[in-house]
Amino acid sequence: IESGALFQVRRALNALHPAEIADMLEAAPHGQRELIWELVEQENEGEVLIELSEDMRHSLVEEMDAGEILNAIKDLDYDDMADFLQSLPDEIIQQTLDGMDRQDRERVEAVLAYDENTAGGIMDTETVTVRADVTLDVVFRYLRHQHELPTHTDNLIVVSRYDQYLGILPLVDLLTSQPDLTVGAVMSTDLPGIPADMPARNVARLFEDHNLVSAPVVDGSGKLLGRVTIDDVVDIIREEAEHSVMSMAGLDDEEDLFAPIISSSRRRAIWLGTNLITALLAAMVISRFEGTLEAKVALAFLMGVIPSMGGVAGTQTLTLVIRGLALGQLGQSNTRSLFFKELAVSLINGILWGAAIFFVAWFFMQDAGIGVVIGIAMVINLLAAAVSGVYLPIIMRKLNIDPALAGGVVLTTVTDVVGFAAVLWLATLLLPLFQ
Amino acid sequence: IESGALFQVRRALNALHPAEIADMLEAAPHGQRELIWELVEQENEGEVLIELSEDMRHSLVEEMDAGEILNAIKDLDYDDMADFLQSLPDEIIQQTLDGMDRQDRERVEAVLAYDENTAGGIMDTETVTVRADVTLDVVFRYLRHQHELPTHTDNLIVVSRYDQYLGILPLVDLLTSQPDLTVGAVMSTDLPGIPADMPARNVARLFEDHNLVSAPVVDGSGKLLGRVTIDDVVDIIREEAEHSVMSMAGLDDEEDLFAPIISSSRRRAIWLGTNLITALLAAMVISRFEGTLEAKVALAFLMGVIPSMGGVAGTQTLTLVIRGLALGQLGQSNTRSLFFKELAVSLINGILWGAAIFFVAWFFMQDAGIGVVIGIAMVINLLAAAVSGVYLPIIMRKLNIDPALAGGVVLTTVTDVVGFAAVLWLATLLLPLFQ
Repeated sequence: IESGALFQVRRALNALHPAEIADMLEAAPHGQRELIWELVEQENEGEVLIELSEDMRHSLVEEMDAGEILNAIKDLDYDDMADFLQSLPDEIIQQTLDGMDRQDRERVEAVLAYDENTAGGIMDTETVTVRADVTLDVVFRYLRHQHELPTHTDNLIVVSRYDQYLGILPLVDLLTSQPDLTVGAVMSTDLPGIPADMPARNVARLFEDHNLVSAPVVDGSGKLLGRVTIDDVVDIIREEAEHSVMSMAGLDDEEDLFAPIISSSRRRAIWLGTNLITALLAAMVISRFEGTLEAKVALAFLMGVIPSMGGVAGTQTLTLVIRGLALGQLGQSNTRSLFFKELAVSLINGILWGAAIFFVAWFFMQDAGIGVVIGIAMVINLLAAAVSGVYLPIIMRKLNIDPALAGGVVLTTVTDVVGFAAVLWLATLLLPLFQ
Repeated sequence: IESGALFQVRRALNALHPAEIADMLEAAPHGQRELIWELVEQENEGEVLIELSEDMRHSLVEEMDAGEILNAIKDLDYDDMADFLQSLPDEIIQQTLDGMDRQDRERVEAVLAYDENTAGGIMDTETVTVRADVTLDVVFRYLRHQHELPTHTDNLIVVSRYDQYLGILPLVDLLTSQPDLTVGAVMSTDLPGIPADMPARNVARLFEDHNLVSAPVVDGSGKLLGRVTIDDVVDIIREEAEHSVMSMAGLDDEEDLFAPIISSSRRRAIWLGTNLITALLAAMVISRFEGTLEAKVALAFLMGVIPSMGGVAGTQTLTLVIRGLALGQLGQSNTRSLFFKELAVSLINGILWGAAIFFVAWFFMQDAGIGVVIGIAMVINLLAAAVSGVYLPIIMRKLNIDPALAGGVVLTTVTDVVGFAAVLWLATLLLPLFQ
């Protein structure tokens, strides 16, 4: 009975789409995961592995040998195969490649030769090409002899005898033109071949701006290498977006909901340790003003408000600037305008909330001195937040540091230090006047 | 000479892709914007407007009357038209609709009838349909008489005489099959019609999971209404991702790099005001321990470290959970497992960094008492961070509050209050033992 029920479960599971099985695996806590993976049929393993986050894929592949890996991935597209292999240890890559037939191996190696974040690294090497001098009628007859075309074939690629890329023949144009015309007369030459070394994020923008479904990839001499398809572009857009969200919290893109406790703890420890050091920097600043604090302990109640407000205002500017940089909207010509706009926004909010906190201190603590000190510190810190929010990510970009990852930590360090220093320095300077 | 140069600029500008003109407009500060917009030729205005962020689109459309709007949008796809109209005042929508011919108006109204965040709201009503009982040869002849097919036509939609959706005929299958077969024999029935009220984010997941380029949309009775295409899905994925990043910083999705200073200040003031209130809550907690602080001012140096660490740890858990919820990976069955995993991660990091801060206090301040207090508070606050990071977004979801928007504020309020309270309460309790 047990095995009968198991049979049913196995059948139900494998009737799902591989992406759905992957979702299920990622949602399953340890223990259940291994059980579900056991139930996935071999013919689905490759598709499921491709859909998993890198972390999870690793933990499953670790248990497989080269033969099992080869079996799992043998029906994948070449770009997916390459993507998959790229994340394995070199030894396993070599063993798996050795197990492939010559054509497969050459095609996968063509993709593996490019960085995985370029057009070459995400291209599929299976293309349907035609010559410019044949008639559409010949194309129709040729296609009718094919059993199947690669997925996302929305156009045929027109090449010369030497495989030079000439243009594309969209299937819709093929279908709506007279069959006695030549391919050369109908093809579109508007779309230039994508250079294999174009960064993947630029490829994604090209697809978005020009509403493409697939586009040819060429080498430096214009020779056709393969094509990029929209499904890979969607993955890139999704990953790029996730990267921002995860990085800003100091998480790894591929961090998985049920990653092992030890590896999760280790990764997060790095971020927490970094934050501890920056927090100790702020503590050092405060400790320099021990005398001021002893004279007026009530300062300790309210002083934390200032770095907190600076952090929030700075993060807003930072987020806007990081997005502007990612979308290519921000360059040398308009940084200054943005800076003055952000400064003005901070000044207005600084005065507004500075006044608010002044009244809070005055009414509730009956202490106009603390109110004045903390109100002015608010304006100073929000201005510091605007300056760092605009310029930190721009400087980091120039130094090749990812602003989405490091921007937040550095920014809050600035607003913490400036915030505490402003409150306590102003207090040392001004409070004696109120006594 | 002036007008000759202007002519050159205008020509260069209008030779760009509408999406590139839109990028240029968004990157331009006020003043320059209006100038560039003046130079955009009328036939490009519609495409450019569609590519702009909502904020900017509004400010440009405000200056146009219904006639100009109609002229600008008359060549857009129906879904883009509807999307565009949806964001205008009712009066202008009616005037614009009145200016359209009957077919256009009916098609736009069909899309306008659905919420813009559903399949119906993003569908295009232009479809190419065929009957199941005709042969492929007839289909070929029919297509040859069309001048053009709608963009992203990767399949023809097979419908009954009463417009009931039956299946799709992919162009690649049409091309690779024998022409004497019927449509019914070749069509694929694997893809069910998408209900018009399916939320857009589910449509996006469907497209991603099944690698679709276009898919038919049907009403409750299975009648074909239109089709969703991949370009709209890509927009949704991009918007969804931006929403998380922008919301977590308390920014509006459509916030524009060069929004007017006054409206920017007002929007951000709301977020800063909210933060001020939560910061004052923490201040109130601290003020309850005035006596403890007076007895040991050095506590004020280090106590800020604890809420800061809690905020960072909590944000990490929160981000992970928000993503898990958005991807549908987190449900009732696995929340408990996730909770215990996050608790364990927090415990490990709490002990690690609690010990670190104990040594800092001991070595640098020669104060083992403060070290013990602050070390234990670290463990307590990181545990509180794990609890709130896991359960706050889940509770907010249930209350229909967007956790990406409100999660961060509520979480840091919890970690601030718990953090300060833990330090000061433990100090009141334990410090007398060290004297």
